[in-house]
Amino acid sequence: MLWLDGQLVEGGPVPFDLGDRGLLLGDGVFDTALALNGRVAFAAAHRDRLVAAAASLGFAVAPERIEEAMQALAERFARAAIRTTVTRGPGPRGLRPPSDPRPVVFAGAAPSPAGLAGAPLRLLPAEIRRNETSPASRLKTLGYLDAVLAARAAAAEGFDEALFRNTRGAVACAGTGNLFAILGRDLVTPPLADGVLPGIVRAEVLRLAPACGLAGQERSLPLAEWLRADAVLLTNSLRLLAPVAAIGATSFDSARHPAVLQLATALRERIAADCGVPAGAVA
Amino acid sequence: MLWLDGQLVEGGPVPFDLGDRGLLLGDGVFDTALALNGRVAFAAAHRDRLVAAAASLGFAVAPERIEEAMQALAERFARAAIRTTVTRGPGPRGLRPPSDPRPVVFAGAAPSPAGLAGAPLRLLPAEIRRNETSPASRLKTLGYLDAVLAARAAAAEGFDEALFRNTRGAVACAGTGNLFAILGRDLVTPPLADGVLPGIVRAEVLRLAPACGLAGQERSLPLAEWLRADAVLLTNSLRLLAPVAAIGATSFDSARHPAVLQLATALRERIAADCGVPAGAVA
Repeated sequence: MLWLDGQLVEGGPVPFDLGDRGLLLGDGVFDTALALNGRVAFAAAHRDRLVAAAASLGFAVAPERIEEAMQALAERFARAAIRTTVTRGPGPRGLRPPSDPRPVVFAGAAPSPAGLAGAPLRLLPAEIRRNETSPASRLKTLGYLDAVLAARAAAAEGFDEALFRNTRGAVACAGTGNLFAILGRDLVTPPLADGVLPGIVRAEVLRLAPACGLAGQERSLPLAEWLRADAVLLTNSLRLLAPVAAIGATSFDSARHPAVLQLATALRERIAADCGVPAGAVA
Repeated sequence: MLWLDGQLVEGGPVPFDLGDRGLLLGDGVFDTALALNGRVAFAAAHRDRLVAAAASLGFAVAPERIEEAMQALAERFARAAIRTTVTRGPGPRGLRPPSDPRPVVFAGAAPSPAGLAGAPLRLLPAEIRRNETSPASRLKTLGYLDAVLAARAAAAEGFDEALFRNTRGAVACAGTGNLFAILGRDLVTPPLADGVLPGIVRAEVLRLAPACGLAGQERSLPLAEWLRADAVLLTNSLRLLAPVAAIGATSFDSARHPAVLQLATALRERIAADCGVPAGAVA
């Protein structure tokens, strides 16, 4: 199901300007959110991140349009993944953005299986590096091909997801999520400067860490240090907090680490409160 | 003017599936070609590169569709820039490509001013690096945001175009073209492995070099070496062979270098023959 210009429509072709810079140049950003019980979890954070991402590309999008799109779709599902896309809109030939952009907002929703949240994952380090020299590495831009190619390579080797190092060799993120390593009582995640999306769940997990007896830290670490971690976690808005069972040939017992269990519970409670459901309904 | 599904249409919205992976993930490639006198210059090379690019992403596109799109548009203009876009088509939610892709092909054309070809350019080295670890760095993918951002930064400083170094510090390319340095009798261009598009004009220039008394070479060079070049050139399908007048604060008298004049003449003659026009009509 699709939201476009204030209307809900079923799938299929809709009128669209093929001169849209989102389509021609990847000149736009998107967001993926979880909706439960007719409400978007962390709705304000998702909205604000999209508005900020568009601003960082140099165009303004009205927060109300994003809110309306997400909310209209959330109300139609018990549990949904909502993807909201914002492009700079159409422009003249070439790279130069129009001086008076007319951003395009649309969103799609599909049922999201509860089993996705918290399911363990095996990660394969990708050959492709995350390019932390580009501001795009800190945004969910429409240019997502590196993640597509790395996911294909990971799947071909029997893994669930790709792990990206950046050009300096530090672990940055997974193809579709942020990463955390538990090292003793430290809960370490790469800093944004390493080429990392400011994940909504990432921020929540850093906030919840102290109450779970962990010291949250943003710190660059090479892959070799991650392989020595007590537990590794992947976070995103649909998987929430997913224990990483392996990185390449190295296995982790992340799912049974006591702090992971505590964090997962705390996160479920936060989302349950935000969406007005019992904690057991989150995952 | 637009070619879509065998039809020529004027601008404006057309029916389009917003689940298209080109739009949502940058999962597609494009090509820009020059048409003169109703013919596409180096048409077979442009077609073959697009087909190969799609194949490298793991999907097949019929060469006949690309040919038809380019040719139908070329016939409507005396001199046009034709942009042909190929996406993997729609797919289910997530990164995983559909097993049975239905690629979408469309193309747009606009008059291309003859003055663009061969006009001198000033380049500003970009802060964003070209990510040569990604296969996307050797394709014209729909994820073009780095070039958009770098072009904006260059324009803000009064430059025409951005120059990209790769993550190892070697000069790779400009935002919208390949680069050549003339060092004595050597005509040096970065190898594809440095994160470089196999440019159609780049290949022609390498082919024409010996007849112009130059030894064409694919070689990695750091920016400092480029700044000592006798002349620097940018090539693409619309600018053809453009002398670079400056890289940052370093000026070049590229436009008056005798080998540059010879190369430009030879290239004009090649294109004139290909399109059936007098050499003087090319640029």
